[in-house]
Amino acid sequence: MADIAVYDAGPARCTGGAGAFAALVGPNAVLSFERGLRATYMVDVYDFYKPNQPVPSEYPVVEGQASLQAYLTAVDEVYKLFCQKAEKLRNEVVNISDFDAMFFHCPFTRLVQKAFGVLAFADFKRGLSNHLTDTIRAKPSAFLLQPRELNYMSRDFAKMTAQISAKLWAQKTEPSPIDNTLGGKRLLFFSYGSGAAAAMFSARILILEKDTRDQCTQIKQSANAAVALLEERLCVHPKRYNEILALREKLLSSAAPYRPEGVRNNLTDEFSLFPNTYYLMNIGDKYRRYYTQTSS
Amino acid sequence: MADIAVYDAGPARCTGGAGAFAALVGPNAVLSFERGLRATYMVDVYDFYKPNQPVPSEYPVVEGQASLQAYLTAVDEVYKLFCQKAEKLRNEVVNISDFDAMFFHCPFTRLVQKAFGVLAFADFKRGLSNHLTDTIRAKPSAFLLQPRELNYMSRDFAKMTAQISAKLWAQKTEPSPIDNTLGGKRLLFFSYGSGAAAAMFSARILILEKDTRDQCTQIKQSANAAVALLEERLCVHPKRYNEILALREKLLSSAAPYRPEGVRNNLTDEFSLFPNTYYLMNIGDKYRRYYTQTSS
Repeated sequence: MADIAVYDAGPARCTGGAGAFAALVGPNAVLSFERGLRATYMVDVYDFYKPNQPVPSEYPVVEGQASLQAYLTAVDEVYKLFCQKAEKLRNEVVNISDFDAMFFHCPFTRLVQKAFGVLAFADFKRGLSNHLTDTIRAKPSAFLLQPRELNYMSRDFAKMTAQISAKLWAQKTEPSPIDNTLGGKRLLFFSYGSGAAAAMFSARILILEKDTRDQCTQIKQSANAAVALLEERLCVHPKRYNEILALREKLLSSAAPYRPEGVRNNLTDEFSLFPNTYYLMNIGDKYRRYYTQTSS
Repeated sequence: MADIAVYDAGPARCTGGAGAFAALVGPNAVLSFERGLRATYMVDVYDFYKPNQPVPSEYPVVEGQASLQAYLTAVDEVYKLFCQKAEKLRNEVVNISDFDAMFFHCPFTRLVQKAFGVLAFADFKRGLSNHLTDTIRAKPSAFLLQPRELNYMSRDFAKMTAQISAKLWAQKTEPSPIDNTLGGKRLLFFSYGSGAAAAMFSARILILEKDTRDQCTQIKQSANAAVALLEERLCVHPKRYNEILALREKLLSSAAPYRPEGVRNNLTDEFSLFPNTYYLMNIGDKYRRYYTQTSS
């Protein structure tokens, strides 16, 4: 699975990025989903979308406020359902401290922190607060009574939830060692797609006794390799990034045949593509696309 | 799964259509795939595609000759692989008479008949011809020696393959009863997507002894219901069909807000939508789409 996000010039542009992920599905998996513990939530909302318009654009329409509300409402709803499932299927009362790590769809870090706060507040409302701090701040009835959409827009609410979840947030965001204690760790995932559809599910790290050292070493190597690739990213000045995206806009709005400016002006070196990367060489007659590869 | 196909004015327009399909996956399935008997074939070809162009169009670019060749090459290749798999996994030498029914991706009927002929000729080349007729016609060395792409364009080749497969084609295209003899029937599927990717796989109709009558009745009812729906299609004069598609082109090229002409002029009756059908009521500000339903 892969995704590329590019945004129009403006506040959203810097949240763009690209990522890819591959998983091998099989028996004795290191990452083992907890059967039945999954919740979904869907709603019809224009929070973030690509309009079907006469002149197409790669950039989505982002409704700032609607998209924050849709995301936070979704995390609240799927967590509620997830907790109900845990009680029903396992007679287990879960709270956010039951998970050693939590994975969120991440539009930007600040929103993930807000979402984490929303979950902490959900625990508080369920009467579970041993894992929270400073809960005296959560008590003003205003936060409990007003519609949650108002909470999501409120600085006071964000501040309060950051405070009650501060200790857990610190624990979960500080670097933690990848060592032989990985086995048995429990993970919670929140998945979100605009429009909107969301899911929450959990997994355990299962390491077979005899393979403990090997598997932990492999996980560590894999994580280090990912970080090493990230470190190879180029630092590009925002002005130059805008120019590069303008080249792309020009390409998409040009009639065929069209030879990309990056190719014509030998910008492939500046773009510093990885070895063996495929890139667009030419848009030929009838908009057929021809690709070539960087050397190995 | 669903698909809608609309084409630009010209010879391809009349091959447009729409279809939808739903399947329940579970144990003791009536339609049971034959494990391992599947073959795939992929090739990079611009036979049929939707170009990424400055002014978008719903209509694909169809390269007539390339698309026929790609389709027929694909059916030839996956059948070859399928036969190899059957020999390797089951020590079984299959030929097209081993299947009680064959399902093809169908751009238009004539191409399916050509594909069926290509499979018959493949059997003939493998030395299997007891199920074929008039095989004397397949013998001219021309058909065996020249590149298959030339065969696919040749009227003589099409005529010859239609002749050698005539008996089987008649058997498989004449109406056949859906009765208690369905159990055990063997089916072959050919799936094709432009670009191109193709697959061939087989299945058996498995009916549990105790449920024979019920399941056959259900299959029959389901098939009859599908035919009944097809019979409800409207017969529209090609001139009117062109006008209706022109309305759609206008809608897609109009700036928002836009109220579809079909709605403005109350054409929903002429279009004779099924009860409870959702249809586009309005394209609002920022190209947000609003739908409504016909009455039940």
